[in-house]
Amino acid sequence: MKAAVLGYGTIGSGVVEILEQKKELITRETGEEVSVKYVLDLRDFPGDPVEKILVHDFDTILNDPEVGLVVETMGGTGAAYTFVKSALLAGKSACTSNKALVAKYGSELLAIAREKKLNFQFEASVGGGIPIIRPLYSCMTAGNITEITGILNGTTNFMLSKMDLEGRAYEDVLKEAQALGYAERDPSADVEGYDACRKIAILSSIAFGKFVDFEQIETRGITDITKDDMAFARKMGYAIKLLGSCKNVDGKIYASVSPKFLPTGHPLYPVSGVFNAVYVKGDMSGDLMFYGSGAGKLPTASAVVADVVEITRNPGRTVFAGWADETLALSENTGAENQYFVRFNAADQSVEEAAAAAFGAEEITKIDHEPGFALLTAKMTRAEYEEKAAAFSQIAQMIPVQG
Amino acid sequence: MKAAVLGYGTIGSGVVEILEQKKELITRETGEEVSVKYVLDLRDFPGDPVEKILVHDFDTILNDPEVGLVVETMGGTGAAYTFVKSALLAGKSACTSNKALVAKYGSELLAIAREKKLNFQFEASVGGGIPIIRPLYSCMTAGNITEITGILNGTTNFMLSKMDLEGRAYEDVLKEAQALGYAERDPSADVEGYDACRKIAILSSIAFGKFVDFEQIETRGITDITKDDMAFARKMGYAIKLLGSCKNVDGKIYASVSPKFLPTGHPLYPVSGVFNAVYVKGDMSGDLMFYGSGAGKLPTASAVVADVVEITRNPGRTVFAGWADETLALSENTGAENQYFVRFNAADQSVEEAAAAAFGAEEITKIDHEPGFALLTAKMTRAEYEEKAAAFSQIAQMIPVQG
Repeated sequence: MKAAVLGYGTIGSGVVEILEQKKELITRETGEEVSVKYVLDLRDFPGDPVEKILVHDFDTILNDPEVGLVVETMGGTGAAYTFVKSALLAGKSACTSNKALVAKYGSELLAIAREKKLNFQFEASVGGGIPIIRPLYSCMTAGNITEITGILNGTTNFMLSKMDLEGRAYEDVLKEAQALGYAERDPSADVEGYDACRKIAILSSIAFGKFVDFEQIETRGITDITKDDMAFARKMGYAIKLLGSCKNVDGKIYASVSPKFLPTGHPLYPVSGVFNAVYVKGDMSGDLMFYGSGAGKLPTASAVVADVVEITRNPGRTVFAGWADETLALSENTGAENQYFVRFNAADQSVEEAAAAAFGAEEITKIDHEPGFALLTAKMTRAEYEEKAAAFSQIAQMIPVQG
Repeated sequence: MKAAVLGYGTIGSGVVEILEQKKELITRETGEEVSVKYVLDLRDFPGDPVEKILVHDFDTILNDPEVGLVVETMGGTGAAYTFVKSALLAGKSACTSNKALVAKYGSELLAIAREKKLNFQFEASVGGGIPIIRPLYSCMTAGNITEITGILNGTTNFMLSKMDLEGRAYEDVLKEAQALGYAERDPSADVEGYDACRKIAILSSIAFGKFVDFEQIETRGITDITKDDMAFARKMGYAIKLLGSCKNVDGKIYASVSPKFLPTGHPLYPVSGVFNAVYVKGDMSGDLMFYGSGAGKLPTASAVVADVVEITRNPGRTVFAGWADETLALSENTGAENQYFVRFNAADQSVEEAAAAAFGAEEITKIDHEPGFALLTAKMTRAEYEEKAAAFSQIAQMIPVQG
């Protein structure tokens, strides 16, 4: 098998490194030598051994009949899409670490692969090094998935963990994440939840078998989470995590990205720092969780190489994967029942009493030397919550509780 | 695909139930209807719908050319072995939930399957409903596995969690586990570690690619764990868990089943109650963990059915799995470096000082109103530990620390 790697950035160079370093192991596993014939990048890499196989023009790869597989690690939905689609149309399988590509064009690329008896795989697009997509296809086959909830973004999980453990403010931990290279200078893809949104869209599509459009998923980031929220969460026995989630409740499918109050006993509760984890509930399998490095050069590249191995093992045969080429209608989240954490600015006893009564709260929480109070509402739809909340101008924050 | 289910106990009846209830889903996933043509059991089940397909004689199944797959859920290594082997020799694929069968005869059965272009699969033999074996084969293919450590037995994890959280004694929680049906009347398979031993033998064979003989794995159960050990562990920031573990340390392979001191930050630390979890360290993937229900009718049966699906998807083709038909030589655990928790009966200052000095302990831990003291040793081989320990008749307990 001759492969071409598109993009020689962090992930692409990791893929080249692993395919070289683990050649013997991979040959044993696939029964065939896998080698990288081309690396495509616009840049030059003087002195790097990759120079010998570096090309700047995708057509060299497209027109070489020896290349059976393109490995896309460029990112984005421009050239990445054009190249992967032309490769598939030209009879070459493809794999990618690019969540944006899969979330936007996955249905089309999967359909071409199926029609051509090729494979289009994307294990690394969600959860970095964590095996999650292939286990959903090959292991969770005996029943229906009723819920997937994941900590899908390491940067924001790192930030929230720091805020929690060290009592620091959002802006402060953001600066640290940027200094460490975890967050970009423009951090919006992470902190606004856009990255997690594409990932839960992919997982939802797999879980429910139809395309879930990421643009339909209600997405809220972590930019309004404060030290006060963290302090109340800790006192009330919860962690605040940014969760991507999809659920089947009596045939209605809900999906969202939002910071959530996560109770101590939940399997995702202890997942901190840059780690990712995906919690999966099946009607037959019960509760499962997959945990690991959600990013990083070698973990992510190792997930890409696992796709290379799987594709090499299955010539002329489309491995079961993907979803039907039909868009799933998500239900409005305002209709989903939940508990909510609500924090109030005022600490006036009449407000406390009115709030407790209105939201059916069992208790009011206060913190010494802090103004305001907080409560957990009874279970209610978000529409109901919003109706009640309209009467309280003192509400400073609302965060749903993970059910 | 016509299957025969061998054994109509908890797991076998779960398999029949899922294959019936999820027929439509499974047909969609495999492109073929999977139906159960026979169930083999020595018992009769008057009134149960299984009656119509119940047989008492395995030859009916063996001699029916329509049966392409036997699903073994009987347990043991007697008839289960004979039946699975004859099925494979007769050209029928097989899957099993039976860890004892796989740990003892896996190499032989895998070799027959490979030779006949059939499949022999055993996802449910380790970790119940947790997808672990197939992810190791299909996802962890880009690098070498350097360690697998698992909470592989739900009964003992339930017992240790109870002892920890409720401060109760071993005998007391064992009675509760028996009353709840988690532990057998003769609990030795669980509490002596024999069950975990077979499971870690299977995982080690996969991780290192050669047969690991379970009889070579040093196995210690939880019968000598006391309330005092638990109290010291809690005070020192550890949990005591029964762990099956295998490691590659500079080319030496170690394997063991033992109660261990697990530090707070370890991914396995929060795994409590009847849940199982398997921690996997890869040289490329980094740290991963797979968590879920380690037992239970439907979770375990769903793992068996996932094998049925995988086998149905791959007619005439052996999916990459198993290990080389060669026995791996394990290194002596006495040569492995570790820290050790050591508890002493005496609380005499001269003993404390001598012990701290001998074991290179950084501090001595005591508990109010409890006699004795405890320490964590410096890192040393077990041979070194044993040499030093010989000088202290006051040692009441030693438990290795998970590194």
